[in-house]
Amino acid sequence: MLSGLRVLELGHFVAAPFCTRLLGDLGADIIKVEPPTGDPVRQWGEQIGGRSLWWSMHGRNKRSIALDLKAPQGVDIVLALAAQADVVVENFRPGQLARLGLSSERLRERNPGLIVTHISGFGQSGPYRSRAAFGLIGEAIGGLRHLTNHPPGTTTLPPVRVGVSIGDSIAGLYAAFGIMAALWQRDRGEGDGMGRTVDVALTESVLSMMEGMLPEYGALGKVKQPTGGGIATAAPTNAYPTRDGDWVLIGANSDPLFVKLAGLMGREDLLDAVEYRGNRERVANAAALDAMISEWTRQHDADALVAMLDEADIPNSKAYTSADCANDEQYLSRGMVREVKDEHFGMTILQAGVVPHIPESPGQIRWVGPGLGEHTDEILRDLIGLDEQSINSLRKQGVVA
Amino acid sequence: MLSGLRVLELGHFVAAPFCTRLLGDLGADIIKVEPPTGDPVRQWGEQIGGRSLWWSMHGRNKRSIALDLKAPQGVDIVLALAAQADVVVENFRPGQLARLGLSSERLRERNPGLIVTHISGFGQSGPYRSRAAFGLIGEAIGGLRHLTNHPPGTTTLPPVRVGVSIGDSIAGLYAAFGIMAALWQRDRGEGDGMGRTVDVALTESVLSMMEGMLPEYGALGKVKQPTGGGIATAAPTNAYPTRDGDWVLIGANSDPLFVKLAGLMGREDLLDAVEYRGNRERVANAAALDAMISEWTRQHDADALVAMLDEADIPNSKAYTSADCANDEQYLSRGMVREVKDEHFGMTILQAGVVPHIPESPGQIRWVGPGLGEHTDEILRDLIGLDEQSINSLRKQGVVA
Repeated sequence: MLSGLRVLELGHFVAAPFCTRLLGDLGADIIKVEPPTGDPVRQWGEQIGGRSLWWSMHGRNKRSIALDLKAPQGVDIVLALAAQADVVVENFRPGQLARLGLSSERLRERNPGLIVTHISGFGQSGPYRSRAAFGLIGEAIGGLRHLTNHPPGTTTLPPVRVGVSIGDSIAGLYAAFGIMAALWQRDRGEGDGMGRTVDVALTESVLSMMEGMLPEYGALGKVKQPTGGGIATAAPTNAYPTRDGDWVLIGANSDPLFVKLAGLMGREDLLDAVEYRGNRERVANAAALDAMISEWTRQHDADALVAMLDEADIPNSKAYTSADCANDEQYLSRGMVREVKDEHFGMTILQAGVVPHIPESPGQIRWVGPGLGEHTDEILRDLIGLDEQSINSLRKQGVVA
Repeated sequence: MLSGLRVLELGHFVAAPFCTRLLGDLGADIIKVEPPTGDPVRQWGEQIGGRSLWWSMHGRNKRSIALDLKAPQGVDIVLALAAQADVVVENFRPGQLARLGLSSERLRERNPGLIVTHISGFGQSGPYRSRAAFGLIGEAIGGLRHLTNHPPGTTTLPPVRVGVSIGDSIAGLYAAFGIMAALWQRDRGEGDGMGRTVDVALTESVLSMMEGMLPEYGALGKVKQPTGGGIATAAPTNAYPTRDGDWVLIGANSDPLFVKLAGLMGREDLLDAVEYRGNRERVANAAALDAMISEWTRQHDADALVAMLDEADIPNSKAYTSADCANDEQYLSRGMVREVKDEHFGMTILQAGVVPHIPESPGQIRWVGPGLGEHTDEILRDLIGLDEQSINSLRKQGVVA
């Protein structure tokens, strides 16, 4: 789908590399520039032999060139690569690349059609632009962290993290969208051939998904509060505990679904109770209702509970663990969970497939996360035109690795 | 940026309308086809005068045509609109549009370049394709809900929802990315002019963001477990309570940052303790460490605490509420929080700005969420070529509203 597109990644950690993973999954040529010490994410999470398992997926479909950006020759190599690229994606702190001699102006000097994409905590402008950006701060300032909590007064435990750096990934996905929009504008028949700047902030990416939160605050002064596993406007819908220690989500928040659920629980008496007769009443008494449902679900193992709910046509699902995802029939049937040979580990690695699915031009996992500098020579030779002697000399000087 | 692009939305609720909001924010012409009863989201959340505040933002930059898809003339109108569109975005249950006479084949009959975009719970193929899709199920099966919880054994409370339909919004964003990739492939110089199918599943969109979860399970059998407000691999990093009842996130999980934090707390003694001397030790004793930090943070109001942490250059942030977002200097300076005149309410409505920020061709809020069928006549006249009499006749028959 995106073959013929060349993307230069000056990225590290999660956001920029996630963006280029999405582009690479659809066929773009991704050139990842790493410092001679490598992207730190190569060591993140569980490892085998000092090599992160996550990296196998995070780095897939990319070519790695290891370069010292503090050396003038390193900067020149990046400029020469930018001259041949459609897109640059970077997530340094704003201003840092310019200080290295890699400002947008210089990157575009020989290539006015270059799409320059910045991903940062707060964006490239404004009073907070230089502040350190961590995923947790993007999520906090985007308004997400306040909401991932139980209702005020329920517990003294802190709001939870969603378990992954969701702010970084959402920002990376927004960047991929912006890049494709800029490329369409540049390359279509009526296009002007000019590059654009895509400026994505983690904070803003999260805030953009906060639905009615801002309009409701502005008009009514309503400060949206966390609602635990439930929803403020419909009940019952929550995660309920099972006998074998799992959680099953049940959404029975319409009148017909609630009738079915009460029947399954053997609690038809609830249908006559004023506290539960309509959605408004059920929302007002959601805590008591959830407690009763939990009492019932705790008598069943997850699989049996799911089977009963399916049989009654009540929307439900186990809260999937990685094991559940790995063995899910639907994921396997759509190639969304797949085994990929990783020669660095000498074994197959389980990876998530490609999103979105485009049946006429499906994305591919062409190769797994490369070794550091695995493509240094190939890139210097084929794209910069250096011979072996020059490459060796640069390597001796520590400019490339 | 996307002016000249026409998108037909056959959508409702969150996922498909969020996708088209993103395209409309960048300038595309969005034609939203609604049933004569309207998209239910028009009544979701807080309302003024029976009108949802969220809708002002969710429906912005779109034209609304109210049509009965069960009437053959309604179907003909959609086919005529599809003939003039670049993209269709729909989120009915798989197969439902085909049953209405609006299969991909029929939609493309007069327009082989049409990009047909489906957003569904499980995707358009596979054994679960026909199952009901709710956001909560996408999040559960994507593996997110299992992780948004406190560590096993900490509490009997259920895992939390992130407060918004994050699975729907992420799927909508993936669809927007896929659409632009398909358009670039279709319209660039070397393009083939052909349409593509973009098939996005909520479950898969969420799973694609789960980082190392699948590779680690596959290689090591490790089932990723929730870690509450913290991270499994670094400490201290969490949300900590303040005297005035807020939460402040602190990320002091490197040795130099931990030294600064211990100094600020007046607890230099911690630096000599074997339990906290390195990250590995701090992770092993994170619960005790978090308890000590919480004891300290509880003595300070959020603003004072943030000021102290800023002064010491320790990454931190209040967990922003909607009020904090609405008043944040950075958001205001970048136009990410803005007031938009909404004539339906007769007042200005606070909305989130446009992401991504593209300085050369900035997105715009051209108008707010329209009334139901506000553009029915305009669309039938300008795009289908109907005269007033024919429109009135269709209206009398209940085909349009």
